[in-house]
Amino acid sequence: MIYFDNSATTKPYKEVLEAFNKVSAEYFGNPSSLHGLGGMAEKLLLQAREQMAKLLKVQSNEIYFTSGGTESNNIAIKGTALMYRNRGRHIITTKIEHPSIKESMEQLRSLGFQITYIPVDDRGIVSVSEIEKAITDETILVSVMHVNNETGSVQPIKEIGQLLKRYSKVLFHVDHVQGIGKVPLHFYESNIDLCTISGHKFHGLKGTGALFIRHGVKISPLFSGGGQEWNQRSGTENVAGMVAMAKALRLTLLRQDTGLAELIIIKDFLRKELEKIEGVQIYTPATQSSPHIINFSIRGFKAEVFVHALEERNIFVSTTSACASKTRKASSVLLAMGVPEDEAMSSIRLSLSFENTLDEAKQFIASVKEAVLKLREVMN
Amino acid sequence: MIYFDNSATTKPYKEVLEAFNKVSAEYFGNPSSLHGLGGMAEKLLLQAREQMAKLLKVQSNEIYFTSGGTESNNIAIKGTALMYRNRGRHIITTKIEHPSIKESMEQLRSLGFQITYIPVDDRGIVSVSEIEKAITDETILVSVMHVNNETGSVQPIKEIGQLLKRYSKVLFHVDHVQGIGKVPLHFYESNIDLCTISGHKFHGLKGTGALFIRHGVKISPLFSGGGQEWNQRSGTENVAGMVAMAKALRLTLLRQDTGLAELIIIKDFLRKELEKIEGVQIYTPATQSSPHIINFSIRGFKAEVFVHALEERNIFVSTTSACASKTRKASSVLLAMGVPEDEAMSSIRLSLSFENTLDEAKQFIASVKEAVLKLREVMN
Repeated sequence: MIYFDNSATTKPYKEVLEAFNKVSAEYFGNPSSLHGLGGMAEKLLLQAREQMAKLLKVQSNEIYFTSGGTESNNIAIKGTALMYRNRGRHIITTKIEHPSIKESMEQLRSLGFQITYIPVDDRGIVSVSEIEKAITDETILVSVMHVNNETGSVQPIKEIGQLLKRYSKVLFHVDHVQGIGKVPLHFYESNIDLCTISGHKFHGLKGTGALFIRHGVKISPLFSGGGQEWNQRSGTENVAGMVAMAKALRLTLLRQDTGLAELIIIKDFLRKELEKIEGVQIYTPATQSSPHIINFSIRGFKAEVFVHALEERNIFVSTTSACASKTRKASSVLLAMGVPEDEAMSSIRLSLSFENTLDEAKQFIASVKEAVLKLREVMN
Repeated sequence: MIYFDNSATTKPYKEVLEAFNKVSAEYFGNPSSLHGLGGMAEKLLLQAREQMAKLLKVQSNEIYFTSGGTESNNIAIKGTALMYRNRGRHIITTKIEHPSIKESMEQLRSLGFQITYIPVDDRGIVSVSEIEKAITDETILVSVMHVNNETGSVQPIKEIGQLLKRYSKVLFHVDHVQGIGKVPLHFYESNIDLCTISGHKFHGLKGTGALFIRHGVKISPLFSGGGQEWNQRSGTENVAGMVAMAKALRLTLLRQDTGLAELIIIKDFLRKELEKIEGVQIYTPATQSSPHIINFSIRGFKAEVFVHALEERNIFVSTTSACASKTRKASSVLLAMGVPEDEAMSSIRLSLSFENTLDEAKQFIASVKEAVLKLREVMN
């Protein structure tokens, strides 16, 4: 099996599952309990938080555990909007965000907030000066993703962060779900106030995530209750899941140096070989893109047909993002880049992890050529 | 080890962890992906949902998967309040709800809603007629827990449901977190619109829960995004966690008949033996209480001291609820029942599961007697 759909989800590392099991079976206490079983669970949770913080180069009291990227994005957007609504009711984001950002924005719009969606250029990249032009006295939040989940385009986060330093009233949220482990990002240096990560995108488990909330920034909680996570996210902590996520992050970042070098080789190979195939159009920009995503189309083939043709060869890729794949609509990210709708309906996303190899890429290219030949025969 | 703190959390069943592992390792696809790996994950999720629905005697499209009881309670309260805010802005609940209800209510109050907290009698039970008296033209929601998490008192859910049938504008939410598997509840017969359950309270895993939302009832989602769970709870589904929860529920309900009979014997024994100890006051009502919780105090001992004395004997019990245990405040549930504050500060909660035995209860009673003797010696 060749699994090239790592932006949808990754296979958990064996060690990650082992850690989850050990904690679930042996340290099952509720971290809020006063007795020793609770204390042990609490200690493990603290260690996981400290490990995450160290790996992300932030303070451990800035790491809030959540159930995943969607939750973190929702807390970041709605939680700050509700908390700071008396400062202003204008929010800036981009046209290429994940649905969990876009839909949160639309929900806020229905509650009386004003949302500005900044366009992207034909490479799928947002302009810092467009963001600056959009800022008003009412602006309380700017939310921009780091690495686009469909094309891999990398947004100028550091530059936006520098810009926003001059607007003390404006918070900066970054959706780092696709970037983590693939494109380094220093939260403090980029002046980030809130940053989203999701465990299952780097070989952790589904149902685990985190939100970085810079010290001093407050949110209105989505989950009220027992006061866990400094009162910002109540609910019995998924201790085993968080220990597993910290482990997955450590293992991922340990492999980062060699892993990224290999990914670049694989991606360059894929890009070069895909370009040789007649009718292929690549949407991932050649520069300013993450080493793990390539988005392309082959003229004349609906994406779904091609996904299934590859699956028959035991290769797993995706059309647009997993979240949007069942709507059968053209990718809004590609449309925002100016790709014509019929072309966008043909787009395929390959997304790699450090588990993938150049051999797999070679097999993939051979399979694509074979599938194209066969499908063209059928169609003629 | 004697673990009598099952209302805080339970130890996951071995089979539950095995199911989690198998799904995580072998069926790790994203259920939203179009390819076969996604399809298999989606199928497992569907099966888990159907199994849960069958066990709870409802339709499978009425089961919404969440990250736990706190999330389910927050969705139920805030999600309906925001959805139906144009019908009215008055909500009724009780003085003995879990913090995830109470704090959600207070957040809504700050957004302009009016909240009525119905008192309880000295047994910790709410009166149906008090609820009826509180209903106004503005009332959109009544939220009452089934089994109280601190005392085990059972609320008259069916009667409240019958009452609310006459008020078609008023939704009925029940927090069933402590009741499930212990005190049977038929959602339809009790006219329940929304019902909360939490996986880790019945030997499932932390980070898993569900909300029953009756067909036709709408909520404003807390998590917006990719549209999972019929657009009511976006985010990549924790497939393995949900399969594990369905399994835990099945195993729990399978054991329910014999398990409850044993629990009643154990609880009667504990009650009778505790009453013989000088200075013991029992707060759990003799009738209308769940077979798995006993709450009591021993005059003159702070709860914390006693919890630790028992822990030295390898017995794990709790003071108030886990969520509130670190605040060191007197239990608001006991105060609502009219228990004096100093007495409430001494209260101990035993909470059992089907894993506990009468032998453990005997050991527990012997240890309590021994600890009381020893502590009284120290204090004199």
